[in-house]
Amino acid sequence: MIKRSEEIKPAMPGVILELITYNREKYNKFESSDPDELITRLQPDQVNWVNLDGLNNSDIIEKLQAHFCLHPLLVDDVLADQRPKAEEYDDYLFVTLKMLYRIEGTSIDYEQVSFVLGSNYLLTFQEKEGDLFEGFRERIRQDLGKVRKKHADYLLYRLIDIIVDNYYAVLDRIGDIIDDIEETVYENPTNETFYKIQALKKELIYLRKALYPLRDALSKLVKGESDFVREENLRYFSDVYDHVSHIIDSMDTFKDLTSSLMDIHINAMNTKMNEVMKVLTVISTIFMPLTFIVGVYGMNFKFMPELDWQYGYFLVWGIMGAIFVTMMIYFKKKKWF
Amino acid sequence: MIKRSEEIKPAMPGVILELITYNREKYNKFESSDPDELITRLQPDQVNWVNLDGLNNSDIIEKLQAHFCLHPLLVDDVLADQRPKAEEYDDYLFVTLKMLYRIEGTSIDYEQVSFVLGSNYLLTFQEKEGDLFEGFRERIRQDLGKVRKKHADYLLYRLIDIIVDNYYAVLDRIGDIIDDIEETVYENPTNETFYKIQALKKELIYLRKALYPLRDALSKLVKGESDFVREENLRYFSDVYDHVSHIIDSMDTFKDLTSSLMDIHINAMNTKMNEVMKVLTVISTIFMPLTFIVGVYGMNFKFMPELDWQYGYFLVWGIMGAIFVTMMIYFKKKKWF
Amino acid sequence: MIKRSEEIKPAMPGVILELITYNREKYNKFESSDPDELITRLQPDQVNWVNLDGLNNSDIIEKLQAHFCLHPLLVDDVLADQRPKAEEYDDYLFVTLKMLYRIEGTSIDYEQVSFVLGSNYLLTFQEKEGDLFEGFRERIRQDLGKVRKKHADYLLYRLIDIIVDNYYAVLDRIGDIIDDIEETVYENPTNETFYKIQALKKELIYLRKALYPLRDALSKLVKGESDFVREENLRYFSDVYDHVSHIIDSMDTFKDLTSSLMDIHINAMNTKMNEVMKVLTVISTIFMPLTFIVGVYGMNFKFMPELDWQYGYFLVWGIMGAIFVTMMIYFKKKKWF
Amino acid sequence: MIKRSEEIKPAMPGVILELITYNREKYNKFESSDPDELITRLQPDQVNWVNLDGLNNSDIIEKLQAHFCLHPLLVDDVLADQRPKAEEYDDYLFVTLKMLYRIEGTSIDYEQVSFVLGSNYLLTFQEKEGDLFEGFRERIRQDLGKVRKKHADYLLYRLIDIIVDNYYAVLDRIGDIIDDIEETVYENPTNETFYKIQALKKELIYLRKALYPLRDALSKLVKGESDFVREENLRYFSDVYDHVSHIIDSMDTFKDLTSSLMDIHINAMNTKMNEVMKVLTVISTIFMPLTFIVGVYGMNFKFMPELDWQYGYFLVWGIMGAIFVTMMIYFKKKKWF
Amino acid sequence: MIKRSEEIKPAMPGVILELITYNREKYNKFESSDPDELITRLQPDQVNWVNLDGLNNSDIIEKLQAHFCLHPLLVDDVLADQRPKAEEYDDYLFVTLKMLYRIEGTSIDYEQVSFVLGSNYLLTFQEKEGDLFEGFRERIRQDLGKVRKKHADYLLYRLIDIIVDNYYAVLDRIGDIIDDIEETVYENPTNETFYKIQALKKELIYLRKALYPLRDALSKLVKGESDFVREENLRYFSDVYDHVSHIIDSMDTFKDLTSSLMDIHINAMNTKMNEVMKVLTVISTIFMPLTFIVGVYGMNFKFMPELDWQYGYFLVWGIMGAIFVTMMIYFKKKKWF
Repeated sequence: MIKRSEEIKPAMPGVILELITYNREKYNKFESSDPDELITRLQPDQVNWVNLDGLNNSDIIEKLQAHFCLHPLLVDDVLADQRPKAEEYDDYLFVTLKMLYRIEGTSIDYEQVSFVLGSNYLLTFQEKEGDLFEGFRERIRQDLGKVRKKHADYLLYRLIDIIVDNYYAVLDRIGDIIDDIEETVYENPTNETFYKIQALKKELIYLRKALYPLRDALSKLVKGESDFVREENLRYFSDVYDHVSHIIDSMDTFKDLTSSLMDIHINAMNTKMNEVMKVLTVISTIFMPLTFIVGVYGMNFKFMPELDWQYGYFLVWGIMGAIFVTMMIYFKKKKWF
Repeated sequence: MIKRSEEIKPAMPGVILELITYNREKYNKFESSDPDELITRLQPDQVNWVNLDGLNNSDIIEKLQAHFCLHPLLVDDVLADQRPKAEEYDDYLFVTLKMLYRIEGTSIDYEQVSFVLGSNYLLTFQEKEGDLFEGFRERIRQDLGKVRKKHADYLLYRLIDIIVDNYYAVLDRIGDIIDDIEETVYENPTNETFYKIQALKKELIYLRKALYPLRDALSKLVKGESDFVREENLRYFSDVYDHVSHIIDSMDTFKDLTSSLMDIHINAMNTKMNEVMKVLTVISTIFMPLTFIVGVYGMNFKFMPELDWQYGYFLVWGIMGAIFVTMMIYFKKKKWF
Repeated sequence: MIKRSEEIKPAMPGVILELITYNREKYNKFESSDPDELITRLQPDQVNWVNLDGLNNSDIIEKLQAHFCLHPLLVDDVLADQRPKAEEYDDYLFVTLKMLYRIEGTSIDYEQVSFVLGSNYLLTFQEKEGDLFEGFRERIRQDLGKVRKKHADYLLYRLIDIIVDNYYAVLDRIGDIIDDIEETVYENPTNETFYKIQALKKELIYLRKALYPLRDALSKLVKGESDFVREENLRYFSDVYDHVSHIIDSMDTFKDLTSSLMDIHINAMNTKMNEVMKVLTVISTIFMPLTFIVGVYGMNFKFMPELDWQYGYFLVWGIMGAIFVTMMIYFKKKKWF
Repeated sequence: MIKRSEEIKPAMPGVILELITYNREKYNKFESSDPDELITRLQPDQVNWVNLDGLNNSDIIEKLQAHFCLHPLLVDDVLADQRPKAEEYDDYLFVTLKMLYRIEGTSIDYEQVSFVLGSNYLLTFQEKEGDLFEGFRERIRQDLGKVRKKHADYLLYRLIDIIVDNYYAVLDRIGDIIDDIEETVYENPTNETFYKIQALKKELIYLRKALYPLRDALSKLVKGESDFVREENLRYFSDVYDHVSHIIDSMDTFKDLTSSLMDIHINAMNTKMNEVMKVLTVISTIFMPLTFIVGVYGMNFKFMPELDWQYGYFLVWGIMGAIFVTMMIYFKKKKWF
Repeated sequence: MIKRSEEIKPAMPGVILELITYNREKYNKFESSDPDELITRLQPDQVNWVNLDGLNNSDIIEKLQAHFCLHPLLVDDVLADQRPKAEEYDDYLFVTLKMLYRIEGTSIDYEQVSFVLGSNYLLTFQEKEGDLFEGFRERIRQDLGKVRKKHADYLLYRLIDIIVDNYYAVLDRIGDIIDDIEETVYENPTNETFYKIQALKKELIYLRKALYPLRDALSKLVKGESDFVREENLRYFSDVYDHVSHIIDSMDTFKDLTSSLMDIHINAMNTKMNEVMKVLTVISTIFMPLTFIVGVYGMNFKFMPELDWQYGYFLVWGIMGAIFVTMMIYFKKKKWF
């Protein structure tokens, strides 16, 4: 029942299974591809963080499911592209959301991360190898900050916070691009700037899809309905909730700015078009009458008195000059230049 | 009181009436066009799934109505084009929704499916022959999955889930078409791409009409207000609810992408137009002055000194060449090429 | 205090006052223009349906007001153009809504209908002669359906249901017109199709104004807050509520389709314009250089070597032919044909 | 702390201070510019209506404030441009809203009116001399209607009702203008019609700003939360609330109609433009080839056989005629005329 | 964990730390860069207002944090760009919002101001030197108004009120600019006016981002949920809340007006374009036929009877004059002038 309404992300070939156990005194890291071995290493009196990178090894997932009594629907949700949400089960809290990467030169990359928070453990499921948590793992090892003094729910908070912090980085990049476009769009509206605006709009559309449900999910946690988030840590989740609200505000602002850029682009296009049309009209309006006049005196009638006048030719030039000057004054007054 | 605000679907000539009864041990399938016979075969201690394909045999419907004490308004709702909804009656729960088919080469086909869930039976009413449940019927027969161990409400969940899963397939197709259009719309915006975008928009408009009320209906069930959905199965309905929410998110995303495609199309049209106008203006601006000049020396004045100059003709060519070059530089600088 | 923000409907010259009394056994119809006489004929132990067509006889209204103790504000609401609403008074329930007529060849016609539901009577106030209830009156007389077995609240339901059913007919017509326009708008976008689209939009705007408040009013009744709607009949009002919701959904769908038609129309207009501009540009681009060339050899310079060449004339034709062919290939490649 | 985000209204030079006291038996009117004298005339056992036109005499306001114990924030609200609102204080109810005038030939004029409703008095503060209450004052004096039999809260209702009734008049005018524009916009879309539409839009924008908060304020009163509105009079406030809702509906309808007018205007402009371009293209397409042909035979080549043909000239006319006719047929077929 | 999704504001080099203590009798102001010294000067029985301008001295902030037991998340919120919000902690109330400056000749400048309200103290954190409170500090010193008689929560109200009042000034400026643009946009729509409109739109987008969350934050305070706002002062916060609602209304109005200005600009551009096209078409339509005619009689056929007619030349002039006049009448009738 795997559902992926968007593109299928290329899963990585192997999988990484990792266990970090810690409390105030102890810290242990264990990496293995054998779930049975890992399960034996779980420490009931410590915080157990089990991280799985890569979801295509059904054997590992089944063994984790069996040991932690994961509900089949929960496993479906982990494996399939899911709407960000938080769900309370009898024995654990399930949270799933999208992790964004800011990849240089290309657009945003998404990865679904799912969390299962039990009383003394946290499972994290990631679709791909590599994540944003490397620096934080080091902080745990070195016992920096409060994490070693706290329970698994604080660990969940920190991981979500890291992911949400990264949204700011993504938004910053979007803000920079908007500034860039704004500088060029007034002067020189090319199709390239238009494509950039469209790409931005698309990124914002996908961001919105990731962020709005995330806010709803966090609001559920913040209301204190979950048994697995300690009340002392509610304020932390509330803080992440505020950050997500702030990001959504910025995103809406960027959306408005982007649509404003579109207006500017369209106006610039129209202005250019108007300019082109004015050139055409000015040229036509000046040269059509003149060409008509010289055409008149190119006629071959036997009897055309002007042709015989000595200064006829110069007179015609004079008339044409007068017409030219009149036209120029007319256009000047109409502010066509 | 049959109301159909949209097109009338061609009903099939015959009707199919089918009964599947099962519990953990037993399984029976019975097909007949005689409702009386079918009613005698109902098993009070098993799950009874009565399926009716084709709604134009009033005799069958009346007999089912009589036996299951169906409310006249419920029967009206089954027969007429209805808004997806869930309604609790005294003796049963009524759910109606739209089943979507993905038909190759053509657009989406709709069919209204209605469910009546009693304590030990489920009635399903379909407008047309053929449905999405064939594979699932086989799973019941072979006792795969949990369905034989569960009650009629789980059966209802599975059928709704199958229908909702199929929405994903429809959305995937829409996603693919959007990708296709996006590739061509930048390069070569034809009326054909425009028509495709409009067709997409139309599909999304109809999808929205089917999905928003469905979410409302499911939310009613999820709140646990119904007596006919066991609490142990609420999580399943909640899961379907999440799927529908996810589909609605994707649909909204697609709607935004479609309107973005429209913007791209319009911009491409305008760009093309601008290009055409530029060609016209360049040609006019170059040749009008030149034609004027040659017109001047086509005049028949008796006294035109330049005509007698030996190199007058070549001088004129020189002047015209200079004008041509100047113009080209001017347009080059204005980036009209 | 009569307020009519829209056009004033031409009231009919006379008024019709009619009383139908019925229960399971008895049925009586009485028509008169004398309210006093009518009041004497009211049957306390039967359902009394008093219908008034035409609201410009203040004498009748005052007498009805006196007998049924109608609140002055209620009478104001009956007489003036009102927002559809349902209001509970101490001794009766007041409901007002818009009845729509589908008039061939012209647009929709509106009429305000007000209901006062007491314990054993229903008053209906209509602005104009003629209504949608004729067939239903006959059904009462012949004792068809359940109406003779039920109380006045069921009568109210039936009348509202008839009015709401008629909305479907109006929507069907709109749906048909949308289909018609869709067929022609791609091929041949004239101003006429544009006017039709605008007329549709206008109808939908007015429909929305009638329907949204109606839904709110019905939702009040459905919540069971009224003392004058028996609980056994709540489901009927709930059904009408669903129908109105369904109609609103369809209306929103039609609104989206109409704005989609507008996009198609505009695109068709632009496509036509582009085509016109291309013709102009192609003609200009071909003939301007050619005209220039023939102009060159129309000059009267004494010394123009080409003029004396024997095949100069044909050479010029050859050059012009080459230019023409080159241009045609260029435009072909640019897909301007 | 006077805040005026919009234009400052020119206050009148003098101020008018007026007291009307009444009950079933007595009626007294007293006009003065001395607040102390007025305060002595207040009748504890009657309804006291104190009306102040013009807010720039701080002495009067301070004395009223002192006598009626008005909160400083309330006085700020009376003096400054305020959002329509209803606020409950310990000893009185404060209501402020906008009174609209329909001024012939010009746009709408606004005036802020504030009410302070105590147990036996009503204070009204108006920015300018002259109001809509003149006729109503006369009705009080002559003891018409119920006002003399009721308390100060009924007086408040009547004054608000008069103001709201006047909104209908303003809306009627807008409706008439919309009808006018609609008649001309199809035929003859000038800039003038466009400006009229824009002026309408602006009026509607300001109306909305006055009306939406008014509805919120009235809804507060209707909920019966105020101690100063007697329950028996709630229905009257509810009626005003309905009127405001109705006006808002009409306003939204007018907004949609106005934006529909804009579409029609833009379409008419585009149609006109297309027509102009067609004329240009037809003329160019016909005369450019013809001019080219006559240019050919204006060349001065020594050897041009056609020139010597006896009927060459007429032949050329024939060819040109044929081209002309072909072109005309082509354009006819393309429906450019 | 400092997050700034928008531009980084240049922090001032030094910081200003200031303490004002007051009650009914006493007033003291103390300025220092040493937080320890300042802390010794706090008066437990007075209101203590600690103001910090400049947030880049982590030493000061840490010492304040230590003394007032500020939560680490609160300090993060003070230091980073934050969404306006109000949060209740155990020992204090935290409020953060944006202070706007109206800078002559340039656009709006933002500064984040955070408040921590304890039982007898108020901390204010500002990003930059200089604020809007100077006049108010003087009022405290001179014991004007009620502030010396009230507690720290009233001080908070006054500071927020001053900030909100300043929004009115900013909005006034926007209103003035809108009026300016409106005057010129009908007559002379240049790109400059377009840029001004876009700049306005941008300012409104940012304003909205600052104001909507502020309203939410204030609504929290107004509901009386906070322990640190005395009930007697709730009305003051309610007043600020009303002001913010009023500002948001005005902002929405300005947004609508701005988009109306855009429509006017676009229409003016199109009108201008139409005018240009008409000039072109008129000129072409008049001179193309005339040029054709004179071309005809410039042909060199041996046998062209008209050439030999004595008045042929004048006849041609006559014909051309007739064509010219006909055209002019045609265009006049089509109202192209």
